[in-house]
Amino acid sequence: MIGVTRGRQGSGGAGAGQSMTEIRVDLGARSYSIVAGSGLLRRAGRLLSSVSSGRHMVLVSSPRLLRLHGTVLLQALKRSFARFDVIRIGDGEEQKNHATLTRVYDGLLRAGADRRSLLVAFGGGVVGDLAGYAAATFMRGIPYAGIPTTLLAQVDSSVGGKVGINLPQGKNLVGAFHHPVAVIADDAVLGTLPGRELRAGLYEVVKCGAIRSTDLLAFVERNLDGILACRDSLMHRIVVDSCRIKADVVVEDEREDSVRAILNFGHTIGHALEAATDYRRFRHGEAVAWGMIGAAVFGKELGLTDAQESARLTGLIRRIGKLPGLAGLGHREVWHALVRDKKFRGGRAKMILLAALGEARVYDGLDAAHLEDFLRRFLAAGGRMD
Amino acid sequence: MIGVTRGRQGSGGAGAGQSMTEIRVDLGARSYSIVAGSGLLRRAGRLLSSVSSGRHMVLVSSPRLLRLHGTVLLQALKRSFARFDVIRIGDGEEQKNHATLTRVYDGLLRAGADRRSLLVAFGGGVVGDLAGYAAATFMRGIPYAGIPTTLLAQVDSSVGGKVGINLPQGKNLVGAFHHPVAVIADDAVLGTLPGRELRAGLYEVVKCGAIRSTDLLAFVERNLDGILACRDSLMHRIVVDSCRIKADVVVEDEREDSVRAILNFGHTIGHALEAATDYRRFRHGEAVAWGMIGAAVFGKELGLTDAQESARLTGLIRRIGKLPGLAGLGHREVWHALVRDKKFRGGRAKMILLAALGEARVYDGLDAAHLEDFLRRFLAAGGRMD
Repeated sequence: MIGVTRGRQGSGGAGAGQSMTEIRVDLGARSYSIVAGSGLLRRAGRLLSSVSSGRHMVLVSSPRLLRLHGTVLLQALKRSFARFDVIRIGDGEEQKNHATLTRVYDGLLRAGADRRSLLVAFGGGVVGDLAGYAAATFMRGIPYAGIPTTLLAQVDSSVGGKVGINLPQGKNLVGAFHHPVAVIADDAVLGTLPGRELRAGLYEVVKCGAIRSTDLLAFVERNLDGILACRDSLMHRIVVDSCRIKADVVVEDEREDSVRAILNFGHTIGHALEAATDYRRFRHGEAVAWGMIGAAVFGKELGLTDAQESARLTGLIRRIGKLPGLAGLGHREVWHALVRDKKFRGGRAKMILLAALGEARVYDGLDAAHLEDFLRRFLAAGGRMD
Repeated sequence: MIGVTRGRQGSGGAGAGQSMTEIRVDLGARSYSIVAGSGLLRRAGRLLSSVSSGRHMVLVSSPRLLRLHGTVLLQALKRSFARFDVIRIGDGEEQKNHATLTRVYDGLLRAGADRRSLLVAFGGGVVGDLAGYAAATFMRGIPYAGIPTTLLAQVDSSVGGKVGINLPQGKNLVGAFHHPVAVIADDAVLGTLPGRELRAGLYEVVKCGAIRSTDLLAFVERNLDGILACRDSLMHRIVVDSCRIKADVVVEDEREDSVRAILNFGHTIGHALEAATDYRRFRHGEAVAWGMIGAAVFGKELGLTDAQESARLTGLIRRIGKLPGLAGLGHREVWHALVRDKKFRGGRAKMILLAALGEARVYDGLDAAHLEDFLRRFLAAGGRMD
């Protein structure tokens, strides 16, 4: 257990009186906790030193984030670790490559890091994926912890242990499974997110609800305005619920051999849209949002998903905000990207669809020709088939 | 289990009538078998297809080895896999870097490899470490198998799952633990090894005996001439015994948290000698041989190792052949390399020493100043203190 007590705690920060919640990800010897709450940055030193056997921390972050939150965080961390170093890297997707990885290795060596040093990733998904991969591979693996700063990273990459970098040929082609020793999700940090970034993360929250929890979906429906205004208590609830859902699924299937695949709901069409637009038009969450709309409508067409439930999901996604449109996207190139990504065999397609809202399932043996035809119609209608 | 039966089998090859032995490395879901025997290359296709769920194999090897053994091996492999690709890389230590790793990733992508493709490393330690690391990280890990072609690789890197590459700053600084799905150790391949390479591997066999088995030591003592002449049945026995010893130790402690450290017997001084000579003067096995001599004599000096047993080990090492000498090696630079490698804290040194021949132990809290003084005298005497 991380050094906190469960339940409501006065943190003295932006979220005084806010509840702090610990979510245990139960993976045997690799178990760890996600701590979610407001104003946790100033307590990060104590939280992290309780899960580190060493006295040396290396923080990996971006200059931008250190300007925004560095003063509070660094003060907290320095107090709790005898030795403390910072490695600065850029946080755009184009930084998630071998050159930046080498800079992290170099920084670790200069800092005299060894197998007991704790590497802490402070940033969004790119910083988390890259720093986590550096930790997975430096000296065959050193402990790392995450302090994700975007809603997407808090709900998506906090759980699952997926770390990695891109190759020129494609995203996430090189990576590992390396679970953190702790994750600190500070709701207060989310207040500085641009609106589009916040919405992109919210689609992942909706995804968690769609695959496993109508309660979470209903909560987002009821509180959408407050969530988009980033109200702490609301953010706390959606982050905690989403992490719990992901943790449950990952614990059932750590290496994605079976049920974990449902976390990829919306990703079949989503990935294809991203790839076909060279990852430029859509944020990942936005592509997944389109993918969920597509999966809901396709599920309805196949008679697997109830029409009302399908409409409820697509309606919520559309209420969140306007997605970048599908105009100009050729059916052939999207289909090509989809087949390359998913490697359908023998005319049969595998896809995650909704047996019901809150209950995603892997459907194997779907008719690939039907899916291709659906995609053609879906794109031609600009995604408006619900 | 791999697709073989235990015990003696006519292989029809160079080692007809030779026994084929399966050593099971029991690591739960990551368990695998090492198959040792003569003339196994021609059966590699069948052996490997039995442990692969896919129909695609990618062989990573060096042009040199493919010239020597490629015809037999490729024919065997092609028969058993529907799709088959070859990636050629150099096999010198200087190739164990990121540039070569990138070539393997590129080759995998060109070959259309996916998470079910089997990567097979055919070569010595460099090819095994690098190709194994590529397999550990490509798409977050794909299965790999090893067909080690040097005695060192057969006894050392077949067991333990350590894979990785070098950084400009040092050896094996980047890596992972990734166990193979199978290892094929063909004794017949060892016949083409240069003498120095063979002896370098034999020191690792002696190490396995020194830490866990006087039987194996006695076998090497009795059969040294035949072993140096690379007689199949003798090679078979020492490879099987060494792999069994390593497998036992690794199964007890997969991630090297405790007992697995005894496999590093001879490595404290050995690593320092390698680093202080820029990895140019000694082969790894030779440096370990000097390290074992040093550890035996130091253990005797501390009253931990019996004088006769210490002399028996150093005598055997000297009988194997003449090691590159220690002349000109400054005590300061070797000590410096040793401290950098082992990170002694508070004047206390940790080192693997022999409580008895066949029984290595980790000794913590040794007097670092004493070890430094011993090293000074050991180098001054050109390693002749036994």
